[in-house]
Amino acid sequence: FFPEMAASLWKNLLQTTKERVLQQRGASLYVDAHGYEEELIKKKLQQFAGGSINLSKEDSGIGILTLNNPKLMNAFTGTMMLELQERVTELENWKDGKGLIIHGAGNTFCSGSDLNAVKAISNSQDGMNMCMFMQNTLTRLMRLPLISVALVQGKAVGGGAELTTACDFRLMTPGSEIRFVHKHMGLVPGWGGAARLVRIVGSGAALRLLSGAAGVDPARALHLGLSEEMLSSSDETGALEEARAWMSQYTEGPANVIRAVKKVVTAGRELPVEAALRTEKDVFGTVWGGPANLQALVRRQRHK
Amino acid sequence: FFPEMAASLWKNLLQTTKERVLQQRGASLYVDAHGYEEELIKKKLQQFAGGSINLSKEDSGIGILTLNNPKLMNAFTGTMMLELQERVTELENWKDGKGLIIHGAGNTFCSGSDLNAVKAISNSQDGMNMCMFMQNTLTRLMRLPLISVALVQGKAVGGGAELTTACDFRLMTPGSEIRFVHKHMGLVPGWGGAARLVRIVGSGAALRLLSGAAGVDPARALHLGLSEEMLSSSDETGALEEARAWMSQYTEGPANVIRAVKKVVTAGRELPVEAALRTEKDVFGTVWGGPANLQALVRRQRHK
Amino acid sequence: FFPEMAASLWKNLLQTTKERVLQQRGASLYVDAHGYEEELIKKKLQQFAGGSINLSKEDSGIGILTLNNPKLMNAFTGTMMLELQERVTELENWKDGKGLIIHGAGNTFCSGSDLNAVKAISNSQDGMNMCMFMQNTLTRLMRLPLISVALVQGKAVGGGAELTTACDFRLMTPGSEIRFVHKHMGLVPGWGGAARLVRIVGSGAALRLLSGAAGVDPARALHLGLSEEMLSSSDETGALEEARAWMSQYTEGPANVIRAVKKVVTAGRELPVEAALRTEKDVFGTVWGGPANLQALVRRQRHK
Repeated sequence: FFPEMAASLWKNLLQTTKERVLQQRGASLYVDAHGYEEELIKKKLQQFAGGSINLSKEDSGIGILTLNNPKLMNAFTGTMMLELQERVTELENWKDGKGLIIHGAGNTFCSGSDLNAVKAISNSQDGMNMCMFMQNTLTRLMRLPLISVALVQGKAVGGGAELTTACDFRLMTPGSEIRFVHKHMGLVPGWGGAARLVRIVGSGAALRLLSGAAGVDPARALHLGLSEEMLSSSDETGALEEARAWMSQYTEGPANVIRAVKKVVTAGRELPVEAALRTEKDVFGTVWGGPANLQALVRRQRHK
Repeated sequence: FFPEMAASLWKNLLQTTKERVLQQRGASLYVDAHGYEEELIKKKLQQFAGGSINLSKEDSGIGILTLNNPKLMNAFTGTMMLELQERVTELENWKDGKGLIIHGAGNTFCSGSDLNAVKAISNSQDGMNMCMFMQNTLTRLMRLPLISVALVQGKAVGGGAELTTACDFRLMTPGSEIRFVHKHMGLVPGWGGAARLVRIVGSGAALRLLSGAAGVDPARALHLGLSEEMLSSSDETGALEEARAWMSQYTEGPANVIRAVKKVVTAGRELPVEAALRTEKDVFGTVWGGPANLQALVRRQRHK
Repeated sequence: FFPEMAASLWKNLLQTTKERVLQQRGASLYVDAHGYEEELIKKKLQQFAGGSINLSKEDSGIGILTLNNPKLMNAFTGTMMLELQERVTELENWKDGKGLIIHGAGNTFCSGSDLNAVKAISNSQDGMNMCMFMQNTLTRLMRLPLISVALVQGKAVGGGAELTTACDFRLMTPGSEIRFVHKHMGLVPGWGGAARLVRIVGSGAALRLLSGAAGVDPARALHLGLSEEMLSSSDETGALEEARAWMSQYTEGPANVIRAVKKVVTAGRELPVEAALRTEKDVFGTVWGGPANLQALVRRQRHK
């Protein structure tokens, strides 16, 4: 029996290594080996159509991702889940990108899942497949080498609240609200919102937000560290303009440097300290002696 | 020599897997393999009798755990350590439980270990066995699928301060104090208080609290994130009533949903992000399409 | 093919264990196996001489480490990097030490790397070797069983800002500034500053500090948790005196106890919770029943 055991063990270790490599390329958290049936869940999601996810890539290097299903407060239909995956792939391939703003159409953010889709995939295995599909997409979103902002107008509820936690920052307009309403639906987060919320506000505040299911207004969100800023505009265009201006403080500069900054912070956030240090050294190696670095050295020399 | 090595390696891996499974069932951190001699330390603890740990399970799903040794400010005798282990086992088996309030008799919380027990187990190996016993119990307490609160009246000192860190939340009454006094006793925490304190207040604040050994009053605790709320009652009954009311914001709802919320937060707190995401998906699978979820969908439909 | 694979796997596991043991002895993060060429980089650094790193070990158990290259705002020359490594080794061997204050000569902290050294090692591999050299030193600094403080006067810029994050605490004098200026140099941190900053202020604030590259004044640093205290003295002697007084709150007591406190906090900061708990138990075993503990028990008995 021994060779079989060792072979299986060995296969396991190889798989771990392969998975790690895949992750570094921004790839998925779940593959077949986890009992995840991607084609199956995609077919089911395809049946619940409506709305869209639109991406506009601006020359400044800022992408604007719009959740567009306003008659359902931008709830995710099945096809919107599929489109989000495609847009994230597009963003992974956008080498000039520096930042990303996610917002909803019609002056509100997102109310989670569309009830029709929800009812049709209500058995436990389908539910977990849907979670794995969305976790894969949102993990890739979180790991994009772009500085990402959720611009919260109106309401970010349930899955909508979870989506905001896949961004680096949350900006809230007056009167807006983030609400982890899951308990009232007899649920807990499943798109990764709990795991990410703990990392943003700490486990105590996360437990209060999830078990209390109360709405969080901009002032409270700021106090908890759930949001970075209260914007002053209430209208869609004004708020988007404000979000762009806020973002520009951080995205000014060469794309490869901004992207490298996001990469070292992602490593610091996700990895144990020694692995984070190693990644930081590797990312440093990609910019050290590069064009932006050499130009800065020349500039400095001239100032002397 | 090779097969022996590989066999031992294999055994090691199996053990790791087994340990992981045990932990998911709320089981112990230390087993024989860690040099932990449970029966030996239990026999020694048995010799230092006094006080009791009482548990009352209320119909609301809130358990009240009382540290009861008022003439020694609720210091832990040996038999109290043993009883705490039994009460935690009882709580693990209480499937209707949603919350837990830990408090001390006689208007004070807990002053750590009873000096008599301490002196009798003063060699290093006994000390570490006692730590392993208490760490096992407190780790199981921390991982209970119950929202837990330490209600701090009077003083939580030394091991008493450590015990508060095994709860999700700390509520403090006027004039109360949490104090990691260990340094003045020539010690450091050993019941897991340091590891947990770092996770609650950050490593900088934890280092200041442990190396300064100063008392923390309710206002300072609130500022540090060591406490969630200053209660207004100073008497035992009033404070317990206030704690119950505070807790009820978070425990309202079906037990399996509240317990699921605690489980996803525990995963978020203890596991690397990818493992936390996987656990969240699994816990989601236990409530998705369940009775509370289906009822909520029907309610929502009617509102339309 | 099988035995080779298993042998390599086995070697791997042994290496991991060996590395872990080395780390516990405060040893280096990078060794030959990581492609790190220590002798090569040391030879290159040797060529860029200037300045010094001075260490004074005071009877109180406080070490004062001075960055001394005032005409370049204490920028690190190659020989200063080499000397820092030597001073850290000296501190690892100082068994009576309890605390460490790092400050710069001439009323300013440190401006990072000396431009001449930078230009001479501008290819990517040299750059990564330099990072590995500095990360090794700063990781050992961070893990010293001493409570460490960066006393920031004037400016801590670039690598100087990174150095402050390898200390437990940061104290800032009026008008001083910490600035992660790397982006403006076409760079990201490489001495471990990003990985450590995320752990000090959280990933959101770290991303803002690194991608914004703005200076942080004492009030802002206090608000972010990047600093513990604003000192009132502006002159070198006064500030050092204030830092010593601040430190003394935490270093009062027997050296082995203070060092044990730092060790349990280091474990809590760096390790997963179960490993941190185990380390805490082991460190507890080194002080339990020791001289300071026994004296405290006698003192307590007398008070009764």
